[in-house]
Amino acid sequence: MCKKNVIVFGGDGFCGWPLCLRLSNAGYNVTVVDNLVRRKTDIELECDSLTPISPLSVRINAWKELTGKEIKFEYINVSDHYHRILTLFDRVKPSAVVHYAEQRAAPYSMKSSHHKRYTVNNNINATHNVLCAIVESGLDIHLIHLGTTGVYGYGTAGMKIPEGYLTVKVDTDGGEKELEILYPASPGSVYHLTKTMDALAFLYYNKNDEVRITDLHQGIVWGTATDETMMDERLVNRFDYDGDYGTVLNRFLMQAVIGHPLTVYGTGGQTRAFIHMKDSVNCVKLAIDNPPKKGERVKIFNQTTECHNIHILAKKIVRLTDSEIRYYSNPRNEAVKNDLAFVNDSFLDLGLNPITLDDGLLVEAMDIAQRYVDRCDRDKIIATSMWNKDKKVDRKGSKKPRR
Amino acid sequence: MCKKNVIVFGGDGFCGWPLCLRLSNAGYNVTVVDNLVRRKTDIELECDSLTPISPLSVRINAWKELTGKEIKFEYINVSDHYHRILTLFDRVKPSAVVHYAEQRAAPYSMKSSHHKRYTVNNNINATHNVLCAIVESGLDIHLIHLGTTGVYGYGTAGMKIPEGYLTVKVDTDGGEKELEILYPASPGSVYHLTKTMDALAFLYYNKNDEVRITDLHQGIVWGTATDETMMDERLVNRFDYDGDYGTVLNRFLMQAVIGHPLTVYGTGGQTRAFIHMKDSVNCVKLAIDNPPKKGERVKIFNQTTECHNIHILAKKIVRLTDSEIRYYSNPRNEAVKNDLAFVNDSFLDLGLNPITLDDGLLVEAMDIAQRYVDRCDRDKIIATSMWNKDKKVDRKGSKKPRR
Repeated sequence: MCKKNVIVFGGDGFCGWPLCLRLSNAGYNVTVVDNLVRRKTDIELECDSLTPISPLSVRINAWKELTGKEIKFEYINVSDHYHRILTLFDRVKPSAVVHYAEQRAAPYSMKSSHHKRYTVNNNINATHNVLCAIVESGLDIHLIHLGTTGVYGYGTAGMKIPEGYLTVKVDTDGGEKELEILYPASPGSVYHLTKTMDALAFLYYNKNDEVRITDLHQGIVWGTATDETMMDERLVNRFDYDGDYGTVLNRFLMQAVIGHPLTVYGTGGQTRAFIHMKDSVNCVKLAIDNPPKKGERVKIFNQTTECHNIHILAKKIVRLTDSEIRYYSNPRNEAVKNDLAFVNDSFLDLGLNPITLDDGLLVEAMDIAQRYVDRCDRDKIIATSMWNKDKKVDRKGSKKPRR
Repeated sequence: MCKKNVIVFGGDGFCGWPLCLRLSNAGYNVTVVDNLVRRKTDIELECDSLTPISPLSVRINAWKELTGKEIKFEYINVSDHYHRILTLFDRVKPSAVVHYAEQRAAPYSMKSSHHKRYTVNNNINATHNVLCAIVESGLDIHLIHLGTTGVYGYGTAGMKIPEGYLTVKVDTDGGEKELEILYPASPGSVYHLTKTMDALAFLYYNKNDEVRITDLHQGIVWGTATDETMMDERLVNRFDYDGDYGTVLNRFLMQAVIGHPLTVYGTGGQTRAFIHMKDSVNCVKLAIDNPPKKGERVKIFNQTTECHNIHILAKKIVRLTDSEIRYYSNPRNEAVKNDLAFVNDSFLDLGLNPITLDDGLLVEAMDIAQRYVDRCDRDKIIATSMWNKDKKVDRKGSKKPRR
């Protein structure tokens, strides 16, 4: 088992690819495992990354040409090809595997019964296959999983949301007693549901088989570029702006660039957690470098650097770019307004120096959008995935906030 | 939508079949949905029900011959054939569906990676397909699901385990605050893990789509016969005695009948929740007849009537039958000893008159075992499914308790 061997499941995706480059740059032997489903979903949605992403072999060859470093690739469907995962573990003997191989968009998970079922089947089986293969391999592999701040629900009980565990008091026959529990799950979509189910699988496999696990509850990623992805156009990362896969701040930036009104759903009273792509990559590397001890419970980190109210965020972009806001009825089933704050001491203690919402980085992201503006399909901007039967697609929006 | 139309997913199984007969007897129009997997598992395990169970068509024809009542059957794999479930809902327009279509044995779920993966894939997709189809059908269908008392873990925080929800106090910025949360899940096997994941799926679909759901956390079933299954030999229910599917008390009764030492794993210090088959059927019928109101949160009932310590239980059988106890090393990864008590007010309030451990019923179960004693394969008695790599099959046992 080599400390420098790492497998990245889902290493061709939005968070996976920049991580692979960073790890490879830092001297890790990286194996990407992917079934390229994110590229195939583009075909299904008749949509594409704003940035022209190269085929994976071109990405990998460019990286080798530029740095002399080799990234390996295995075409595997993690939710299905169990035995190939097992033999891969046996061959590579990784010290750590990073698991990004899940359908990651809440709106996509709500498009139809097919999409709900695909998300549940893919995500739960993928996570369980990786856990099962770690146990069957007999290797002491550290699993790093990308969760979401959404597992906690988007509201607090009047406190900063702690990192995974919550201390509660209960009345017992012998008086009041203190317990430490997993923070009660409150999923807001089928996608989020799968991440809360994953957390139970981690709890169980950690307890029964002492698998070392770090679960990272990540906020909404903004920005797309890292030092490595900017080295060459063939290494460029995805930039999604559509109603399903585009993350809110990147969508606003893109909309500002093309002169589309900023699409705020509902009143914009929602508060969400954010993290820049560069920090996302930094955090996962920190997690790999600091595994839990053998027998230690699942490490849960809140991988987010700041919280913002969507409306205030939109107004910030308006000021920066002279764009306007348009309010659409909310396709999601969620609170009109919420407060949110997270403890994120674990990564700060490990040395993370957070990138917060910074005009320079906003401009950098807009520069990327500007460069590829001709590739934008405006028909893909409006969200069309409805949370339940009471919701209707709103293509027109209005200048006043909608509930 | 007819109040009398009920679909029973897994209606050919150990709990499903007696329920179908009871519901049919009570005037419900019953449709059994099953892929007959439990019979196929017998082939895999080279094992069989002690009682000779008739093919499902023979069961159904005998029932019609005896009562004039018709039970319909659809051969569907609930974890896979989504669209057939949807069209069935549309055709039958059931007011309630009972969901037993899950792999139900903890030891089976731990046999190998294959069995772990089968259990997760089957159970999670089956539950999610039923939920998804209820929403897509647009019908107001009440879902009754069979959970397990094992979702709570086999220990208490010093109190009777409440029915699904726990009131806790948390420290907030504004002082101490009370919350009502799902009782923290503590699965003890991959099978139990799937039931804790199911609970999250119910939480979500109830919240997002207002699906009416009752989740029944059932104790270990003992006995096999109900008034209906005893009407004719062709209606007889399964009686499992093997190390995977046999439930503990039924196994002891069977072992006493054939003169095999009672197989106690570990010290027998484990306490478990129990319910007689007759009460299991009564409870599910009560749940069907008392659906939650539209918009009401998931109803969670503890479907168990008493708790017993395994060692004391074994000693009771010893007294009754002049058998002996033999202690085997415990294949499970669990506490050597635990206390356990459950609130079960909901069913008592609905009129359940609990059957508790009663010599007459013990004798009745032994009579059934006695009748088919020649069908017993003694090689199948010892548990062979190990919880993790540190466990070893113990075929010999000893006369002193093992840890």
